[in-house]
Amino acid sequence: MSTDISLRILSESLGEKVLVKLRNGKMLRGVLQGYDQHMNLILDQAEEMHDDSTSRQLGVIVVRGDNIIMVSPTVKEKK
Amino acid sequence: MSTDISLRILSESLGEKVLVKLRNGKMLRGVLQGYDQHMNLILDQAEEMHDDSTSRQLGVIVVRGDNIIMVSPTVKEKK
Amino acid sequence: MSTDISLRILSESLGEKVLVKLRNGKMLRGVLQGYDQHMNLILDQAEEMHDDSTSRQLGVIVVRGDNIIMVSPTVKEKK
Amino acid sequence: MSTDISLRILSESLGEKVLVKLRNGKMLRGVLQGYDQHMNLILDQAEEMHDDSTSRQLGVIVVRGDNIIMVSPTVKEKK
Amino acid sequence: MSTDISLRILSESLGEKVLVKLRNGKMLRGVLQGYDQHMNLILDQAEEMHDDSTSRQLGVIVVRGDNIIMVSPTVKEKK
Amino acid sequence: MSTDISLRILSESLGEKVLVKLRNGKMLRGVLQGYDQHMNLILDQAEEMHDDSTSRQLGVIVVRGDNIIMVSPTVKEKK
Amino acid sequence: MSTDISLRILSESLGEKVLVKLRNGKMLRGVLQGYDQHMNLILDQAEEMHDDSTSRQLGVIVVRGDNIIMVSPTVKEKK
Repeated sequence: MSTDISLRILSESLGEKVLVKLRNGKMLRGVLQGYDQHMNLILDQAEEMHDDSTSRQLGVIVVRGDNIIMVSPTVKEKK
Repeated sequence: MSTDISLRILSESLGEKVLVKLRNGKMLRGVLQGYDQHMNLILDQAEEMHDDSTSRQLGVIVVRGDNIIMVSPTVKEKK
Repeated sequence: MSTDISLRILSESLGEKVLVKLRNGKMLRGVLQGYDQHMNLILDQAEEMHDDSTSRQLGVIVVRGDNIIMVSPTVKEKK
Repeated sequence: MSTDISLRILSESLGEKVLVKLRNGKMLRGVLQGYDQHMNLILDQAEEMHDDSTSRQLGVIVVRGDNIIMVSPTVKEKK
Repeated sequence: MSTDISLRILSESLGEKVLVKLRNGKMLRGVLQGYDQHMNLILDQAEEMHDDSTSRQLGVIVVRGDNIIMVSPTVKEKK
Repeated sequence: MSTDISLRILSESLGEKVLVKLRNGKMLRGVLQGYDQHMNLILDQAEEMHDDSTSRQLGVIVVRGDNIIMVSPTVKEKK
Repeated sequence: MSTDISLRILSESLGEKVLVKLRNGKMLRGVLQGYDQHMNLILDQAEEMHDDSTSRQLGVIVVRGDNIIMVSPTVKEKK
C-alpha cells in the first residue's frame, strides 16, 4: 500500500467542503484549498461550528496538522 | 521480526469493519479503506459510537494515526 | 501538491494583520513580520485578545509554531 | 549493551500472555502475536481489565506503542 | 524567506531584557545571554513574574525551548 | 562530555535495585536487567510502590523510557 | 551563535549545585555530575524540594531532559 493514501483522499477533496475535528474538541468546516504532508490544511470560508448549531466565521485559515484528529473529506451525510 | 507487523494486520483488514479507539476516549467503527506507515486510517461508512449504543454517522474519514490508541482489525466478538 | 502551501499562504500575509489561535486557548493578533518552516511566527504590534474585547499589548513577539492551532492570514470578517 | 533488549524480552514472550499498562490508565491482557521497533503490539484474545475484576473482550488488537507505559512479558505472579 | 528569522530576532535581543511566556502559564523576565536552534534560552538576572506584580529571583537560568510559547524580544511597552 | 553519561550510570546499576519515577506519578522499584538508548528499562522483581508503603508485585516488566521522569540508580538512602 | 550554549552553561556548573524545575511542578536540587545533548542530567546528593521547605533525599538520580522546564546552573541568590 502506498504511503500517501491520506493525501490522495485530501487531493480528491480539493475545492470541496470538509469537516475537521480538532484535538481541543472543536469542529471546523470549510472548503479545502490545500494541504501538505503534515496534514496542515488551508480552508476557505472556514467556520467553527458550535454545539448550538451556530458557527463563527473565520475566513481563510491555516490549520496545523498536529491538532487534527480526523478529516471528513466529503460531507455526504449533509446532503 | 519484521517491522511491518502492524501494517500486515491492517492489510488483512482492508475492506473489513474495524474498531478504532482514540486518545480522546471516543470509539470509531468503519470499513478500512486504507492506511499508511503512520497508522493514518481511511474509514468508510464511519460512525462514532456512543456509550448509550447510539452512533453518529461520519461518512468517509481520514483519522490521524497519532490519535489512535488501538485498532481492532476484526470485530469477531460482534458475530 | 507542493509541500509549502502553508508557507505560501503565510508569505502572502507578510506585512498584514493575522489572527493566531494558540493551544492554550488564547488568541493573538499582530502584523506578520516573518515565519519559518516550523510555523514559528514573528508578529509586530502583537496583542493578546480577551473574551471581553479588551486586549493586552505585547509589542514584537516570537511565537513557537508548535503552540499554534491555526492562523487566519487575512481578517476579512473584520472589514 | 545492545539497543534491542526491550525487543528481545518481547521476542521471548511471543505466544505468551502479556499485561500492558496504557497511558490512559487502562490495563490490557492478551497473547502477544507480534511487535515492532516502535513497541506497537499485536495481541490476540485481548481483553481490557477493569478494577472490579471484570473484563471486556476485544479479540485481536493492534496497540500503538506510544500509548504504552509498560509491558509485563510474563505473568508469573498469576501462577 | 530564510529559516532563521526567529533566531535573527533573538540575536538582535542579546544583552537585552526579554519576556518569556511558558506553557505552564508562568512568565519569565531576564537578560538574554544566549540561545540555540531549539530556542533554548540562557537568561541572566532572571525572575519569575507573579500576577500580583511580585517576582521571584532566579539568577542565571537555562530554559528549554519546548516549554516556551512566545518570547517578546524587546519590552517596548514598558518604556 | 560524552553523550552517554546517562547510559553509563545505568550500566553501573545493572543487577542492582533502582527506583523509577513515572510521569503518571507512580513509583516503581526493581532490579535493573537492561536498558537501551531510549532509556527503555527492563526491571526484574518489579513492584509498584504505593503511598501507604504497600506495593503491587509486577514480575519482569519493560518500561518505555518516554514515561520516565527520573531513575535513581542506587537506593543509598534505604541502607 | 554556537548551538551548544546550553551545554556550555551546564559544563561550567559541573560539580556545582543546580536547581532543576520539572514539568510536573516539582523542584529538584543536586550537584551536577553530568549531562548530555538531550539535557538529561545526573545529579548527586539530589533532593526534591517541597513548598514547606522540607525536602526528600534521592541520592544519585538520572533526570530525563524532556521533563525539565529550566535549570539554574548557579544558585547565586542563596549566598
